[in-house]
Amino acid sequence: MLNPSYSDAIWHRINQKTKPVGALGQLESLAHQLALIQSHRHNKTAENIELNSPKLIIFAGDHGIADEGVSIAPSAVTQQMVMNFLAGGAAINCFCRTNNVDMTVVDCGILFPVENDHSNLVRQRLGERTHNFASQAAMSPQQVSEGLKLGNDIAKQVISGGADLLMFGEMGIGNTSSASAILSALTSLSVEDCVGRGTGINEQQLSKKNKLVAQGVFRCEGLTVEEVMAEVGGFEIVQMTGAFLAAADEQVPVIVDGFIATVAAYAATRINPECREFMIFGHQSHESGHKHLLSLMEATPLLDLSLRLGEGTGAVLSVPLLRAAAEFYNNMASFEEAGVVVD
Amino acid sequence: MLNPSYSDAIWHRINQKTKPVGALGQLESLAHQLALIQSHRHNKTAENIELNSPKLIIFAGDHGIADEGVSIAPSAVTQQMVMNFLAGGAAINCFCRTNNVDMTVVDCGILFPVENDHSNLVRQRLGERTHNFASQAAMSPQQVSEGLKLGNDIAKQVISGGADLLMFGEMGIGNTSSASAILSALTSLSVEDCVGRGTGINEQQLSKKNKLVAQGVFRCEGLTVEEVMAEVGGFEIVQMTGAFLAAADEQVPVIVDGFIATVAAYAATRINPECREFMIFGHQSHESGHKHLLSLMEATPLLDLSLRLGEGTGAVLSVPLLRAAAEFYNNMASFEEAGVVVD
Repeated sequence: MLNPSYSDAIWHRINQKTKPVGALGQLESLAHQLALIQSHRHNKTAENIELNSPKLIIFAGDHGIADEGVSIAPSAVTQQMVMNFLAGGAAINCFCRTNNVDMTVVDCGILFPVENDHSNLVRQRLGERTHNFASQAAMSPQQVSEGLKLGNDIAKQVISGGADLLMFGEMGIGNTSSASAILSALTSLSVEDCVGRGTGINEQQLSKKNKLVAQGVFRCEGLTVEEVMAEVGGFEIVQMTGAFLAAADEQVPVIVDGFIATVAAYAATRINPECREFMIFGHQSHESGHKHLLSLMEATPLLDLSLRLGEGTGAVLSVPLLRAAAEFYNNMASFEEAGVVVD
Repeated sequence: MLNPSYSDAIWHRINQKTKPVGALGQLESLAHQLALIQSHRHNKTAENIELNSPKLIIFAGDHGIADEGVSIAPSAVTQQMVMNFLAGGAAINCFCRTNNVDMTVVDCGILFPVENDHSNLVRQRLGERTHNFASQAAMSPQQVSEGLKLGNDIAKQVISGGADLLMFGEMGIGNTSSASAILSALTSLSVEDCVGRGTGINEQQLSKKNKLVAQGVFRCEGLTVEEVMAEVGGFEIVQMTGAFLAAADEQVPVIVDGFIATVAAYAATRINPECREFMIFGHQSHESGHKHLLSLMEATPLLDLSLRLGEGTGAVLSVPLLRAAAEFYNNMASFEEAGVVVD
């Protein structure tokens, strides 16, 4: 647990700033959280919040269940979008550019691997893609352990390379089905509460998706987090879970993206509850299940822009709010410094 | 009215980007609005949205009604905060720095003028401060006309200096009382619906504020916008209204900040309804009345962070979202360009 002894000093600093107490709303709790993490890490009350090197890791993987037609696009699109990421043409590239965020793409197992070498691509494939979890286990227990370790490793590598703020995004046709199944299996939420329209399926596809997810969840009764991952998980979701565990190990704040990333984040908190304190929530998606899960995690995302894209877009778009929170914590004048006398 | 003939071409461009239709949510309507404004201005469909020079103008003014004790701070704090703005120590300075936004402060009539010269300060004082509107007209009709003109002039000056995105903020102890009165006088909203706690007054102060605002509103029956401004307005609110009119005259997009700025924006739309199309709403404040007014204006702000500070903070914090919208409109790959085949 983060050392709470720094908390009062941090609030005192925030409350001396030239503004009514609480007038910066969510940015105040954000500054508090960031300062608390960095105070804990350095064993003294943070004078400054350091946010110099934010880094996004996008985990990509393919899903056997995509063959069932529960997505708006075929599995081939996962590879095409990975190539789009590497070429700089996707939405997430645009948002990384305007927000000065670096990005790495991890191939966790996509159906059609990317052939050419690229400095921003890391290959740590757990297989070709998962099996169709509606009828069999998505992957083996060994693939789960390996995936958690690989995700953990890549995040730690990025941190040791200097990153002081992490974001995790994902790409994988079919992965809302997997995320919904994991969520329902790990909580008391019904399958219907966890399943949504992903990037935009119709009523008939939604009904089928509900049925298939339920078939997977049915096998998960009484299983551990890792066993649930083996039954209904995805390669990118497992690696992302490992990465969230690394953020806590290394005491680095991490912005959680939308629905799928939040499911991976939740799985990580079930493995190590201390993970939660390092998590900042970027975006409230309209995906059914995300709202329930955020409530379960007592999380209030910074943005609510009706995004439904994944890729880490909701995380990267919230970075300027973290920078604003850090800047007011670091450099806003106190009443005394500014000569402002309220009473 | 903005020429609607560009609208389809702009939506077509947005819908060809490598994402499911609508998946960027509010950023898509934002990109559409920005592209439509710039298409209209240049008489051809915008290939690129230009957002190179965003500029914030903070309008500051003092209010006679502050003597009634309806605020958490005395009028002297308006001057102290203006000096804080000029010294770079306020919250808004922090957010301008992290978001690369330039700022100008306009003294529209603050009780204690700032003595020293400062390149970021413009003096266009309409008086020492307004009269206490609970018992008499806040200002003369001449002060209203002069204020509208001065606000219009300063905004046009900033635009001719190269600004392609405007933001307006305000500072003025007592100005939520004035804004609430204007809102109630110009709409069918009750005084109680329009009055809130400002930056944090207690129950007793709230009750008094309601009573005083009602006294002013009582005199406004059947008056024009300008006449209402004279009865219950504020120097900074009048000048801000003039500035919103300038944004429409010059066809430049403008981000509306919180409650007080939205009241000025609404007054501008009552003078010239075409103003509305140039307005982007930065932040949903929790101030009673703001929600009602946004609904009346059919506006959905980009952020909801429980800010209650004014100064333009909600506007400046939303700038990175406009930059993100512009960048995806300008540089995100189309399906064809990226070789992504969804069907």
